Amino acid sequence: MILSKNVIKQIKSLEQKKYRKETGLFVAEGTKIVCDNIDTMQCEFIIATQEWFDSHPEIPADIEKCVATKSEIPKVSFLKTPQDVVGVFRMPVYDLNTTDLKDKLSLALDTVQDPGNLGTIIRIADWYGIENIVCSAASADCFSPKVVQASMGAISRIKVHYTDLPTFLNEFAGKNIFGTFLEGENIYKRSLPETGVIIMGNEGKGISAEVADFVTDKLYIPNYPQNRDTSESLNVAVAAAIICSEFRRGLY
Amino acid sequence: MILSKNVIKQIKSLEQKKYRKETGLFVAEGTKIVCDNIDTMQCEFIIATQEWFDSHPEIPADIEKCVATKSEIPKVSFLKTPQDVVGVFRMPVYDLNTTDLKDKLSLALDTVQDPGNLGTIIRIADWYGIENIVCSAASADCFSPKVVQASMGAISRIKVHYTDLPTFLNEFAGKNIFGTFLEGENIYKRSLPETGVIIMGNEGKGISAEVADFVTDKLYIPNYPQNRDTSESLNVAVAAAIICSEFRRGLY
Repeated sequence: MILSKNVIKQIKSLEQKKYRKETGLFVAEGTKIVCDNIDTMQCEFIIATQEWFDSHPEIPADIEKCVATKSEIPKVSFLKTPQDVVGVFRMPVYDLNTTDLKDKLSLALDTVQDPGNLGTIIRIADWYGIENIVCSAASADCFSPKVVQASMGAISRIKVHYTDLPTFLNEFAGKNIFGTFLEGENIYKRSLPETGVIIMGNEGKGISAEVADFVTDKLYIPNYPQNRDTSESLNVAVAAAIICSEFRRGLY
Repeated sequence: MILSKNVIKQIKSLEQKKYRKETGLFVAEGTKIVCDNIDTMQCEFIIATQEWFDSHPEIPADIEKCVATKSEIPKVSFLKTPQDVVGVFRMPVYDLNTTDLKDKLSLALDTVQDPGNLGTIIRIADWYGIENIVCSAASADCFSPKVVQASMGAISRIKVHYTDLPTFLNEFAGKNIFGTFLEGENIYKRSLPETGVIIMGNEGKGISAEVADFVTDKLYIPNYPQNRDTSESLNVAVAAAIICSEFRRGLY
């Protein structure tokens, strides 16, 4: 395969959700993320330097390859510091089976909009064995280049679903639906179950009223020392990390 | 004060560390961060819309003010979505007193380079009552616009020091110096003291060998379930959050 102007144009178009949806494709960059994706997803083609292909003989022979020079890679990269390999993959389609999720711990994102936050949350989910993330339709798209890169390969292992959250939570039924609220219980003081849904809210607005209605257990991450003049909140990915850590820490 | 070309040029120059060092000034944007800074730092001047000044009568009279139109603000903003107020502040100078730090819990950053990560870590420190962050000289600069914005106002309350880390750790003496390593102890299984230094390493390389020599207690955040194919690591700010949470969770 040759790195033609058309190929460059096609890859660059995949920065936009519209073209990802039209083609069913997305872009991942760098050795770690490309190799993780190859293990679990359908790879359309890989563009890399000859040196990269030479040092990665494990790449299956049936994957279409395109050799590029180091100076050509930036033409197909979304990174400030382009790496030696860019892969184009087919977006997987996952079934959202609410019944299955009742036996697991999952995250629900009520319009987390920053791609860096979403990517970081996918990486946290992967670390703590949370296989499914259910996002509201207005959340950031998990296959945008920034999310894929921030996930550091975790996007290849975690199922990210997009759906109407109230509908999903309604089916989940009124048990073990967690969210953080100022008036919530101190998360450090209570026992937490192995299964359920943890809802994380929007960066600015938190959890929306219509989603909050489904929360059965309100939690709060207290600052230390308490009643001190401090930051008003934690970043949503940071809060997700602390909460997931609390849900898992007793299980080792 | 008038929003002259010279003022615009001066503010824009403050994106560069060189000019911040030369002038001793830095920029903060948005109501929350500007108002937090006004409480604790010396403000050189504020640029805002008339509406903003009208709705913030608490801004002290002796602070120099510059009224700008909504369309002028982007000229002095580093944000993609400029807000209604931009403040220029004098960088505070803090004494690093190692003896004082022996009675507190502090963070040490061994060349955390991403401004977003540093800002997020400052916000985490603020949340968990960690007053001092000691950075290696090659770490990101805490007064760069990206760090200030990511700290969400916490930069006004947390003392960020820059020094030679081995020298600092040597003075700190061989006790309660924590770092995360693959061969470390499960952080969830051990008791943690109220004082000490938590070292966080560089995004790609982790903790450097010369700093690792000073670590007295090696910790590890285990993934769940263990021995599973997963992400190789957590983002440094996420790891800092989980570790700080663990150090504080027993104290409420």
